[in-house]
Amino acid sequence: MAAPLRIALAGLGTVGGGVIRLIETNGSLIARRAGRPLEIVAVCARDRGKDRGVDLARYQWEDDMTLLAERDDVDVVVELVGGADGPALALARRALAGGKALVTANKAMIAHHGMELAEAAEKAGVALKFEAAVAGGIPVVKGLREGAAANAIERIYGILNGTCNYILSTMERSGRDFAEVLKEAQALGYAEADPSFDIEGVDAAHKLAILAAIAFGSRIDFAALKIAGIGRIRAADIAQAAALGYVIRLIGLADHDADDAGRLFQRVQPCLVPLAHPLAAVDGPTNAVVAEGNFAGRLLFQGAGAGDGPTASAVVADLIDIARGDTGAPFSVPVAQLDALAPADPGHRRNRAYLRFTVTDRAGVLAEITAAMRDAGVSIESLIQQGRPEEGGEVLVAMVTHEGPESRVAHALELLEGSPSLTEVPLVMPLLA
Amino acid sequence: MAAPLRIALAGLGTVGGGVIRLIETNGSLIARRAGRPLEIVAVCARDRGKDRGVDLARYQWEDDMTLLAERDDVDVVVELVGGADGPALALARRALAGGKALVTANKAMIAHHGMELAEAAEKAGVALKFEAAVAGGIPVVKGLREGAAANAIERIYGILNGTCNYILSTMERSGRDFAEVLKEAQALGYAEADPSFDIEGVDAAHKLAILAAIAFGSRIDFAALKIAGIGRIRAADIAQAAALGYVIRLIGLADHDADDAGRLFQRVQPCLVPLAHPLAAVDGPTNAVVAEGNFAGRLLFQGAGAGDGPTASAVVADLIDIARGDTGAPFSVPVAQLDALAPADPGHRRNRAYLRFTVTDRAGVLAEITAAMRDAGVSIESLIQQGRPEEGGEVLVAMVTHEGPESRVAHALELLEGSPSLTEVPLVMPLLA
Repeated sequence: MAAPLRIALAGLGTVGGGVIRLIETNGSLIARRAGRPLEIVAVCARDRGKDRGVDLARYQWEDDMTLLAERDDVDVVVELVGGADGPALALARRALAGGKALVTANKAMIAHHGMELAEAAEKAGVALKFEAAVAGGIPVVKGLREGAAANAIERIYGILNGTCNYILSTMERSGRDFAEVLKEAQALGYAEADPSFDIEGVDAAHKLAILAAIAFGSRIDFAALKIAGIGRIRAADIAQAAALGYVIRLIGLADHDADDAGRLFQRVQPCLVPLAHPLAAVDGPTNAVVAEGNFAGRLLFQGAGAGDGPTASAVVADLIDIARGDTGAPFSVPVAQLDALAPADPGHRRNRAYLRFTVTDRAGVLAEITAAMRDAGVSIESLIQQGRPEEGGEVLVAMVTHEGPESRVAHALELLEGSPSLTEVPLVMPLLA
Repeated sequence: MAAPLRIALAGLGTVGGGVIRLIETNGSLIARRAGRPLEIVAVCARDRGKDRGVDLARYQWEDDMTLLAERDDVDVVVELVGGADGPALALARRALAGGKALVTANKAMIAHHGMELAEAAEKAGVALKFEAAVAGGIPVVKGLREGAAANAIERIYGILNGTCNYILSTMERSGRDFAEVLKEAQALGYAEADPSFDIEGVDAAHKLAILAAIAFGSRIDFAALKIAGIGRIRAADIAQAAALGYVIRLIGLADHDADDAGRLFQRVQPCLVPLAHPLAAVDGPTNAVVAEGNFAGRLLFQGAGAGDGPTASAVVADLIDIARGDTGAPFSVPVAQLDALAPADPGHRRNRAYLRFTVTDRAGVLAEITAAMRDAGVSIESLIQQGRPEEGGEVLVAMVTHEGPESRVAHALELLEGSPSLTEVPLVMPLLA
């Protein structure tokens, strides 16, 4: 048996604890598969005394995290501290500069600094791996970077946030409203005390930016990514979608936009997903990613998107790859060869869309809305007016448009801006095709 | 750019043609990802003159296939000839013995000779890769061997044959009977002229034997694998399953049987799959594999299980891995370290089961069947007698048992053997839990 792969572990939260438990539980199995044992040498976390359910006595404790990256007895640093910048980034930079491999579950750091870190890893000839940063335990970074490597990827999309998917599928099943289900999700541990990163779509956006870079061989461009969350979805929207044969899911989607000269389109947004689509069956905190390749066709990867076990599984899979000698380009193609793709203008995008207006309960409102649609060139496929006023005398008007450019819908909404008939900014969701 | 990976291609059927088309179409993309170009040097097939829709003039033609393995200008041989033995096996042996890597889509050859070939590859220090042999374009060999490598796999199962899945889901949708749908599938190209390998479950069994070896670190034991096909399933079975909230799918499943001292259980058999299970939504010729890991939980890989594009995608993914330098153990663990696991006795297995009897339409038949169940210790959860006789005066009696060992059901059927009341051997299908 070859020499062990020596590991320094920064961050001992639920995932860090999971990594220790996994290596302790499956160690001999892993040594057979990797050809050498994985050995945790040193660890570091904020609070040394905290009970984590694992025995830390056998590992060396380092008070200063960045010193993990300096140790001569360490081959790879595992960063599980979190945060796009700050100590995590400092540690990552120091590890790679010192010729140590880096494994991280930190999607924010990779979405914001992935190019810099990948360049540093390539320069040092070491691995930078981040399977756990995207979709928890699902090996989708590997699936794209290697499994689908023979394909030009035409589109990549999926359910990338378990909290949102739990909330939406629970709203769907129970008929309850967003705020109530969010509260329950927080009580059950499916949502954070401050859930904004999840429900506003930022977490999913970090993951999508990483996937898009690998899929399209393009530089990460997080700033260009459009993001909308799920906070404005009502029980009534879910009911309308169901009546039309759809469910609502928060979808992160990226492609070379054929309607905009092949520019890079990236967006996280709630969408109407047809019931026959495999993503419509994805319930609860599960994640699922679809990659459409020009030869493989539609590939689906599904599994637990979070949790200590699944995330630890992804971290340790990266460590096994490194133990086996994988030092390939983190984004499949060396950073210097990644394209800097211009962002697509979503206005060019052709979609069918669901539009929902909340209006005051008085005559002429419907005429006003439909006139704006007509003037903007938006063709309405079906229109549903919910007759019974909601609380506050509000009436919901929902419609589905024929396929057309998003710019027209945007124009129609501009025409309606400031109208005293509307009690809220209209909600627009594309139909996933 | 490093030197090209030089390829010899044996077999120019639909998949071989697909590999050529893929490398021609996506060549520059692949070169960026692999760090070096893939270059087809020489090809061989039975009929040189046949029109394959690709221009073979730029590749050297070899009349004697085994000479592909002798060429000094070739790094890797791609075997797409098919057949467990014969020319494919001769070529594979010669390539590996000569220190050339081997990529194959040949599930029969790997299921029967995978241990010998993997040993030869390990001895020569070259890669043996067979992603395309299992589930077409879905990167599930990689998903298990690498993506889930940190996990003890508790169970692996899935829909491994697109022909059967097409037939079963079409029977389900149309209410038609097996023979009629099979004929249609043949006309549409979803089933071969001689469909026996597919519908009898042998093709799925080849794939399952390969997956089980990787998942459980065990030597392939194809002879111990139990196989039942779909030919005896009637429209009435599908209707009964639907009434109970299930669909019928041909499932290949392997695990360490907890009911039999952890021995290796491997079986291909039609099963009742609950509607809420992700495999129940898998329609048409799609394949899907579930791996349940002790840390990752349930991972699902889904996609096209056959076809020239998807299969070529898997073949070329293997070539890219080789171009990137992967020479790891074909079955994740070196052959010498694989366990020779004793086969589990299915009699110990505890399941709920669907049993369907076809009986003569006369008094006392039901009492006879239920007495046999009682005497064998099988507890019946629900019993459905289809009142209206089928053609020939047959009546169908279907039941679902409570969970219990399969040996009891087998014993009950023994008690009924030779009974003049039964017009056919009863059909038994476990409920997937």
